[in-house]
Amino acid sequence: MRRTLEIPRREGNFSRILENIYKPKDWKLFATIITGKMLGLIAVIAAMIFLPSIIGGTPAHAADTYTAHETAVINSLNTVWTLVAAFLVFGMQAGFVMLEAGFARKRETVNILVECVLDTAICGISFWAIGYAFMFGAGNGFIGQQYFFLQNVPATYGSTGVAILAHWIFQFAFADTASTITSGAMIGRTSFRGDIIYSIFVTALIYPIIGHWAWGPDGFLALMGTPGHFMPSLGQPFRDFAGSSVVHTIGGMVSLAGAIVLGPRIGRIFLRDDKKQGGLPAAHSLPLATIGAFLLWFGWYGFNPGSTLSAMDFEGIGRVAANTTLAACTGSLAAMLCALWIGPFKGKFDTGFALNGMLAGLVAITAPCYWVSPFGSVLIGLVAGLVVFGGVYFMEFLRIDDPVGAVSVHGFAGIWGTLSLGLFASGQFGSTGPLGADNTSVVKGLFYGGGFDVLKAQAIGSFTITAATLLVSFIVMIAVSKLPYPFKLRVEPEGETGPGGLDVWEHGAEAYTN
Amino acid sequence: MRRTLEIPRREGNFSRILENIYKPKDWKLFATIITGKMLGLIAVIAAMIFLPSIIGGTPAHAADTYTAHETAVINSLNTVWTLVAAFLVFGMQAGFVMLEAGFARKRETVNILVECVLDTAICGISFWAIGYAFMFGAGNGFIGQQYFFLQNVPATYGSTGVAILAHWIFQFAFADTASTITSGAMIGRTSFRGDIIYSIFVTALIYPIIGHWAWGPDGFLALMGTPGHFMPSLGQPFRDFAGSSVVHTIGGMVSLAGAIVLGPRIGRIFLRDDKKQGGLPAAHSLPLATIGAFLLWFGWYGFNPGSTLSAMDFEGIGRVAANTTLAACTGSLAAMLCALWIGPFKGKFDTGFALNGMLAGLVAITAPCYWVSPFGSVLIGLVAGLVVFGGVYFMEFLRIDDPVGAVSVHGFAGIWGTLSLGLFASGQFGSTGPLGADNTSVVKGLFYGGGFDVLKAQAIGSFTITAATLLVSFIVMIAVSKLPYPFKLRVEPEGETGPGGLDVWEHGAEAYTN
Amino acid sequence: MRRTLEIPRREGNFSRILENIYKPKDWKLFATIITGKMLGLIAVIAAMIFLPSIIGGTPAHAADTYTAHETAVINSLNTVWTLVAAFLVFGMQAGFVMLEAGFARKRETVNILVECVLDTAICGISFWAIGYAFMFGAGNGFIGQQYFFLQNVPATYGSTGVAILAHWIFQFAFADTASTITSGAMIGRTSFRGDIIYSIFVTALIYPIIGHWAWGPDGFLALMGTPGHFMPSLGQPFRDFAGSSVVHTIGGMVSLAGAIVLGPRIGRIFLRDDKKQGGLPAAHSLPLATIGAFLLWFGWYGFNPGSTLSAMDFEGIGRVAANTTLAACTGSLAAMLCALWIGPFKGKFDTGFALNGMLAGLVAITAPCYWVSPFGSVLIGLVAGLVVFGGVYFMEFLRIDDPVGAVSVHGFAGIWGTLSLGLFASGQFGSTGPLGADNTSVVKGLFYGGGFDVLKAQAIGSFTITAATLLVSFIVMIAVSKLPYPFKLRVEPEGETGPGGLDVWEHGAEAYTN
Repeated sequence: MRRTLEIPRREGNFSRILENIYKPKDWKLFATIITGKMLGLIAVIAAMIFLPSIIGGTPAHAADTYTAHETAVINSLNTVWTLVAAFLVFGMQAGFVMLEAGFARKRETVNILVECVLDTAICGISFWAIGYAFMFGAGNGFIGQQYFFLQNVPATYGSTGVAILAHWIFQFAFADTASTITSGAMIGRTSFRGDIIYSIFVTALIYPIIGHWAWGPDGFLALMGTPGHFMPSLGQPFRDFAGSSVVHTIGGMVSLAGAIVLGPRIGRIFLRDDKKQGGLPAAHSLPLATIGAFLLWFGWYGFNPGSTLSAMDFEGIGRVAANTTLAACTGSLAAMLCALWIGPFKGKFDTGFALNGMLAGLVAITAPCYWVSPFGSVLIGLVAGLVVFGGVYFMEFLRIDDPVGAVSVHGFAGIWGTLSLGLFASGQFGSTGPLGADNTSVVKGLFYGGGFDVLKAQAIGSFTITAATLLVSFIVMIAVSKLPYPFKLRVEPEGETGPGGLDVWEHGAEAYTN
Repeated sequence: MRRTLEIPRREGNFSRILENIYKPKDWKLFATIITGKMLGLIAVIAAMIFLPSIIGGTPAHAADTYTAHETAVINSLNTVWTLVAAFLVFGMQAGFVMLEAGFARKRETVNILVECVLDTAICGISFWAIGYAFMFGAGNGFIGQQYFFLQNVPATYGSTGVAILAHWIFQFAFADTASTITSGAMIGRTSFRGDIIYSIFVTALIYPIIGHWAWGPDGFLALMGTPGHFMPSLGQPFRDFAGSSVVHTIGGMVSLAGAIVLGPRIGRIFLRDDKKQGGLPAAHSLPLATIGAFLLWFGWYGFNPGSTLSAMDFEGIGRVAANTTLAACTGSLAAMLCALWIGPFKGKFDTGFALNGMLAGLVAITAPCYWVSPFGSVLIGLVAGLVVFGGVYFMEFLRIDDPVGAVSVHGFAGIWGTLSLGLFASGQFGSTGPLGADNTSVVKGLFYGGGFDVLKAQAIGSFTITAATLLVSFIVMIAVSKLPYPFKLRVEPEGETGPGGLDVWEHGAEAYTN
Repeated sequence: MRRTLEIPRREGNFSRILENIYKPKDWKLFATIITGKMLGLIAVIAAMIFLPSIIGGTPAHAADTYTAHETAVINSLNTVWTLVAAFLVFGMQAGFVMLEAGFARKRETVNILVECVLDTAICGISFWAIGYAFMFGAGNGFIGQQYFFLQNVPATYGSTGVAILAHWIFQFAFADTASTITSGAMIGRTSFRGDIIYSIFVTALIYPIIGHWAWGPDGFLALMGTPGHFMPSLGQPFRDFAGSSVVHTIGGMVSLAGAIVLGPRIGRIFLRDDKKQGGLPAAHSLPLATIGAFLLWFGWYGFNPGSTLSAMDFEGIGRVAANTTLAACTGSLAAMLCALWIGPFKGKFDTGFALNGMLAGLVAITAPCYWVSPFGSVLIGLVAGLVVFGGVYFMEFLRIDDPVGAVSVHGFAGIWGTLSLGLFASGQFGSTGPLGADNTSVVKGLFYGGGFDVLKAQAIGSFTITAATLLVSFIVMIAVSKLPYPFKLRVEPEGETGPGGLDVWEHGAEAYTN
């Protein structure tokens, strides 16, 4: 349909035709007529350009300008897409509660359930009051300072025309995910009041402020590499498409700090101390854990593809969804085969590694999913499966009790995923203009001939987020652990070992009765 | 953008320009030429106006009229939105079955499962045959009389262009929700045949007819306050955006009538009779109940935002989703903290109140969610948490056995939510014109300077629905309780107390085996 | 709207008008002027036609041609629809794992969980590598030969503009469903390595190649009845809207071949041998099975309506969703009432038949859902309920051990559903032009006066797929059963009967611990 180039030729032909036909004798008359004709033509062309907008039709506009009707439809479509994605991400709460409860011992199950409910409630309130403001408000490179209590928000967020409250709920669901991850490695010995206190810090301060660095409109990692920025000019910003670092590494590192400060559950034997009796206690309900993992995968289809905030980037959302799928598949397979061939579960098809490998693949593909090819995703997931397998044994070696493998799945695989963009970004996929997604310039990684620049930017970003989270989390966890009973982080020993365990101690109920 | 009136002026200019330039000596020739030019110009302008529509381009239209293409896209987008919402609402069936089964005793679990399946089947068939016709067909203020068996339906429903069968499935899912709620307070002692009989009454008659009053095209509560209506002219209709009254109060009140007519389960001890042994029996599976509550919250994102029936109202759907979230958070927190500080669970973080508070917040925000601000939603949810806490104790005080708290959650919080619109409607949000949602005129409640009018209309509507439902439900429940065995409402005593309980008696199976 | 042909006539009128007005004396001058005018007019008309596209406005086009902007929005909307549907279909994995695990004995539960995870991983990888290419690549009538490893794929799939990778993930989810079904009848005695081997055959070869026949761009069943085709010219292609045959019959028949080759579980007593002790062992968790069935129904709303691949066919997606609902309702009711009135469960409301009847209704409506009316759907579901009731007893009679009823639900009800189109296709619904869905020409079945042609085409297609699947599956299953330990299909007897059963033998874990 685009025939812009033919027009001059046509005009040329037309002029020549005119010259051949008009051979008037009376030049004066000819001049009069031809002047009139030219003026008339100009008037007609001008009318053709302006008349449609005057009489109410489609205004003449540049190819990338939308009419009011088109903009309304596009904003609505993008908002629907973002909301559906937000709902799927929220649905991950059901997945997390099942996964964590399933992997836990029966005696600490109710505690997980109620913690998950309460963390969500706290997250909603604090993300409404200050979290969203710190994370997505403009301010400076370190913290946002707009939109407290969702006051004075504009109608839409960003360039894709998503309704601002749809963006809020999408980001609330992300914050809630990070918040839920934090409790994973702290299962079974955290006091409920201690959990409330550190959760408020995580959802109101740690997650939004560190998140602002990468995702805020003026975050210093997001703007890294642009002129005038204080960081070494790599020419590359830090990129984290859907949060391998922002959500998962932060969640995993808070969890790690908590697990270290808490120490292991009473009676927990590590694999390095006893090859036979050691290792994680048996999961109290593998069906619960497996269904939870599938629901998490299901919810990840909101997490990753939804992060375009734009349905108009329709090739992008298809690609992200396919990449997410493939990494989950290879992650699961890799971890399961490792467990089959190596280590104490040799010869058995282990459920825990099958599920945690799947989740590690999902966590890893979260940062690079927009910019890598399906083939790259297959490999990124594969390595994530190895990372989580090694991570779980490394934690055993360090004698850190992580009942669900949260540190390995979210922390270690999150770091791998963030770095993997620097290797696998294929240089094929990027911004599709105003119809498309934010934040999607073309990126080329090491394996595709892009050199080390992207990898360096990713390493700087990942290290910054990992280190900052660990540092602040240790401070918070140690502070909470010094509080007096009943607010201190670790529950009393009789809470852990008494009849009915933590569930009866904190919640006055057992998970299952007759 | 509408500048039709400028065209004559422009033509005038154009004529004047022509006059200034053309100064011919031969006036006869000039007259010939100028006449031709004028005719040509008229032809050209006419062609510019009519040609595009003749050759298939965008017709000239007023700014708020859509082209056929735009209408097709908008109808499709709105239908997708409504269908996705319908699917989420249907998904609440999984949530309800988990919540009810989880809170129940093990011996009555299978009964809940099969009841939920059967109620859905009955609801689908009766809502196809007559329910939709009674509720959404035009008729009179009390009952609809169109669309029986979905015959002679138009292509689309309402002003947002949603395909009529997409509207049907959305409303079927609502009816199914109401139907499932009704069984909540009747768990553990209702005969299966009795359940079938009263369920047919609820889904085919009670819900659709009373629902017609508020949501039918000519329902008397919907038209309240309009000229010529028999109700006192408040200038305000009754408003229930997504069904705090229509779905939840109706469901809760049917449940209440059933629970009263049935009496408590054999051996049920009330709190007022025995502070130690009394109260609801322990939930047989708290993981099931918790996951169910999260799935309900997930499904509520279809329930409330989907009730716009329009994605084009994109700020509206974002706002409704955010408001729904916040009310759930504060409802959960308020009820959990009440239980922590007051009553027999003092000092414990109670799962039941955490979940029922969450659900009460969701029920309460369902009526006002479109018209209130996030801040209003925080408060509405908070009060709902208190309502459900008080409601559960009030039911214990009345010695009514409500195994899952359905009356408090759906009945009492539904009434609160319906009234809350009269207090918190902020006067900021309303109809966005033909692009937007139905039924969304700007409303201002008492706390925002709108006076008592809206509150009065809400009170009239809530009272009418509550009283009518209770009255009819008592008649139905008492009638069914008088039927001969095996059709009478309450199961035989040996069905409740025999080995394997109700499950083996009615279904020949236990919920769990090895 | 297309009146391109009128333009010359109009020009003719215009010329005549000009001729009437222009009565010049100087014919030479007149000739000069009129020639110029004509040329000018041609230029103006040409400009009006081509200028808008040059300056970026809406190009003049025929009524059914879309502007670039409209196409972008439509492609995006259709991609969103397809992706959301794909996510729902993927979510069915959670449903299947719950249904199968719930119906199984506790000792074989972990095996089901891990198999489901592994099958999904294998399916993702093989459908990326070769499955999609065999199924949806162009090639010949028997096999596709494009798009291996998703290389050289176009931007969009088919006529509805869906992003190709969105189509891939939708079809991956379908393949995964077929793959998961296959394990249903083989529960409890299949070795894990044997499962891996036959699963690779199913997802990489059997499903995609046989699927190509019906759904491939040049599949021989899809093109049946078109000129030049080798099959008897019925004038009708084989139609399977969303896979009653392609997904469910294939899955059910693989399952049947597997169950026959494996033989029953050790200790399984059939109903015909012992009326009291015989029949399927009690389900280990009916809550799990019931919630799983509801999640499957929920996911089916992606399966069936999503198969339009087009949201622009908005009446179609509404109709498909409503039809899917009604068939599930009547299927459940019919099977439950059969079990209540006939057979060994007489007098009891049986959970298994309630759930399997629901699923049979869903399976049956999957092929005809686009072309039948709500009334037809009610009847198709009803018969499906009878089919599954009879099917389960028929399998008992044949002494084939099918622990979840997979052969009856997916195999037999799938055949019924495929044939039912030939009876119930109402002749009302079909292609809505370029705005609508693929593959949706109007079809009229026997009961609506369309004669036997459609029924014949359906019978040929169903028979071809059923027979081919059975044949190939028997070959694969027998071959795998002849492999040496530990790769052979059936697990060692001590794996079945040892302490902890198959779960401890293969996976080193029990489903539930304390």
